[in-house]
Amino acid sequence: MRAITLLTDYGIRDSYVAEMKGVILRLYPEAVIVDITHDIGKYDIEEGAYNLARAVRYFPEDAIHVGVVDPGVGGPRKPLIVEARGAYFIGPDNGLLTPAAERLGIKQVYEITRMDLLPLKVSDVFHGRDIFAPTAALLAQGLKPSDLGSEVSEYQRLPLYTVKTEKGRICAKVIHVDGFGNLVTNVTYENLEAAGIGLGSVLTVQVGTISYRMPLVRNFASVPVGDLLLLVAGGGYLEISMNQGNASTRLGIGKGVEVVLSVL
Amino acid sequence: MRAITLLTDYGIRDSYVAEMKGVILRLYPEAVIVDITHDIGKYDIEEGAYNLARAVRYFPEDAIHVGVVDPGVGGPRKPLIVEARGAYFIGPDNGLLTPAAERLGIKQVYEITRMDLLPLKVSDVFHGRDIFAPTAALLAQGLKPSDLGSEVSEYQRLPLYTVKTEKGRICAKVIHVDGFGNLVTNVTYENLEAAGIGLGSVLTVQVGTISYRMPLVRNFASVPVGDLLLLVAGGGYLEISMNQGNASTRLGIGKGVEVVLSVL
Amino acid sequence: MRAITLLTDYGIRDSYVAEMKGVILRLYPEAVIVDITHDIGKYDIEEGAYNLARAVRYFPEDAIHVGVVDPGVGGPRKPLIVEARGAYFIGPDNGLLTPAAERLGIKQVYEITRMDLLPLKVSDVFHGRDIFAPTAALLAQGLKPSDLGSEVSEYQRLPLYTVKTEKGRICAKVIHVDGFGNLVTNVTYENLEAAGIGLGSVLTVQVGTISYRMPLVRNFASVPVGDLLLLVAGGGYLEISMNQGNASTRLGIGKGVEVVLSVL
Repeated sequence: MRAITLLTDYGIRDSYVAEMKGVILRLYPEAVIVDITHDIGKYDIEEGAYNLARAVRYFPEDAIHVGVVDPGVGGPRKPLIVEARGAYFIGPDNGLLTPAAERLGIKQVYEITRMDLLPLKVSDVFHGRDIFAPTAALLAQGLKPSDLGSEVSEYQRLPLYTVKTEKGRICAKVIHVDGFGNLVTNVTYENLEAAGIGLGSVLTVQVGTISYRMPLVRNFASVPVGDLLLLVAGGGYLEISMNQGNASTRLGIGKGVEVVLSVL
Repeated sequence: MRAITLLTDYGIRDSYVAEMKGVILRLYPEAVIVDITHDIGKYDIEEGAYNLARAVRYFPEDAIHVGVVDPGVGGPRKPLIVEARGAYFIGPDNGLLTPAAERLGIKQVYEITRMDLLPLKVSDVFHGRDIFAPTAALLAQGLKPSDLGSEVSEYQRLPLYTVKTEKGRICAKVIHVDGFGNLVTNVTYENLEAAGIGLGSVLTVQVGTISYRMPLVRNFASVPVGDLLLLVAGGGYLEISMNQGNASTRLGIGKGVEVVLSVL
Repeated sequence: MRAITLLTDYGIRDSYVAEMKGVILRLYPEAVIVDITHDIGKYDIEEGAYNLARAVRYFPEDAIHVGVVDPGVGGPRKPLIVEARGAYFIGPDNGLLTPAAERLGIKQVYEITRMDLLPLKVSDVFHGRDIFAPTAALLAQGLKPSDLGSEVSEYQRLPLYTVKTEKGRICAKVIHVDGFGNLVTNVTYENLEAAGIGLGSVLTVQVGTISYRMPLVRNFASVPVGDLLLLVAGGGYLEISMNQGNASTRLGIGKGVEVVLSVL
């Protein structure tokens, strides 16, 4: 009864995710399958990596995480199993898995080569169903990664979010806009400390030529309804938010935008 | 193997709901987790309460229901456990839980105070993951509400849908528009009986200055495709509907709109 | 611990699907419930049949499949159990279930008549919850179809996708647009073989008065990013696709459109 999580850019309108679940249940009927999200932007490896990295720490330590954002499917990119502490990560070798796996601590990385052990003929277009889902089920059954492939020393890493800080000033970037319109930046507590910015500071947030003033607070309720605020949210990153409102709409900015935070 | 349901306004694009499930599975791996919906309008406590109240009666009697529509997160509002018949409801003290719990019959209400028993440091922004989900898992494990908090006698109630009726006339309100465009009103069978309106009646439905005529029927197929109709639908409330069409689009009205039903 | 799948046009914004799951869990708490999709176009039986037919072959052989796209609910159409190899299909008699069941091989078809065995009073508007979901749970418990109804010899079939082919030319139709914008046609490998078209051919795809040239390849990576291509995808049907792009948007066409493929 092992947890298997799924994160893809497949959406849930089609039967693609269901087919992955069917394949898992044929091999491992007692699987507890949990969707992390299937609404990653199409082919957006970085957004997938961000969501996977923030979610996995809340799951059981022996969970098996399948991540599929895979623009190179059918090409030369390798299918991987990454062993990290007690967990496995399964997906394409394009950087999607590594930020999450590095948070837990990578032990070994394997290329999946034993396609003959998989129940389906492997298509060139749907490795989520044909390779990654059955690999997860076989590992849950108790097979070892070394039964399914061979160790590799080279694999793609994704440099997730380096931030420039100086005293009282941080150059940040919006890495994700959540469903509430919160603008998640790449700035962590450590970056704020490095810049000497603490709770209660009022910061200038500059976007292009426009500047906004807002306080760094502990929770939404610290400012009136409709006011802008900064807080380090549940994911560990600084967010530009609005109390009971949509900061993305209000500021007219989205993913990828650069913002400068300063105490002036 | 106890059912734990989740209802939130988080959406499913982000990893927030998945993080709640991860926390539950860490503490209670045999949980059967069911999503009621995560598409409640942001901060819309009333819509959340409506959906929770209609869904819970179909679940096992010992199910544990987690509801999180929580504009006041991090502020002074209390985190609650509501014991109702064999079920528990867990969520913020803002009225979200009470209509559902009252349908089953409230036995006791507790404020969650023993944050030291929860596995995560409680953030100020994400009580769904940090308080409500682990509380559900601990209750599923067998802890008692009194192990996690203390009884309270005061809590928010939400007066869900009072309706003015007189002979042959009902002042109603659209409380929900479903995915088919059905306009769910706050009118029940009891209200129809009180107004002396029975199946087969043809009613005038007045919206602002515009009036429509449509029959009160048992099912969609009672009128031609594309025609308007009234029926008391699966949720127990009167709906303004169109056979194989979208009544909301056709009438150009949505949630919150007042309508007058009369037999004239 | 038997898998029960659900496919509907209910959407997931409302609590309808959750109510079906609640009903199932009350009767059969060990169910492994899997959503195939709930985003079938409203009342679109053909789209539902396509998605069900492609998904079921990946599920355990004894899975129970509930399909509800049911514009005739409450009318005279019969509620059915279709036994096909080791699986059951449950839903309305409107053709939705038959293409999937025929792929496995239909053994018997039953009309559900023993409403007295179902736990809820059967409404006239929500047979997904009141008839089909509890029927699935009762079959999972071990009841036989003949306990719940009586065999019928007449039922609706849906002629799914006949294709006209001649040497070097196929008249095709777009039967589904997936979330990536891939245009799924009704053309199979067998149709391509019948027309003498093989991998590596460059085809003319004519839509109305506009023609496009694109190669028939094995995978997306066979053409540059942004180029159009044809491939027989994971579902067994020929798709008009774009490498890392949206073919539906690029060509401005959607479901139902006829296209002519030729080797000229």
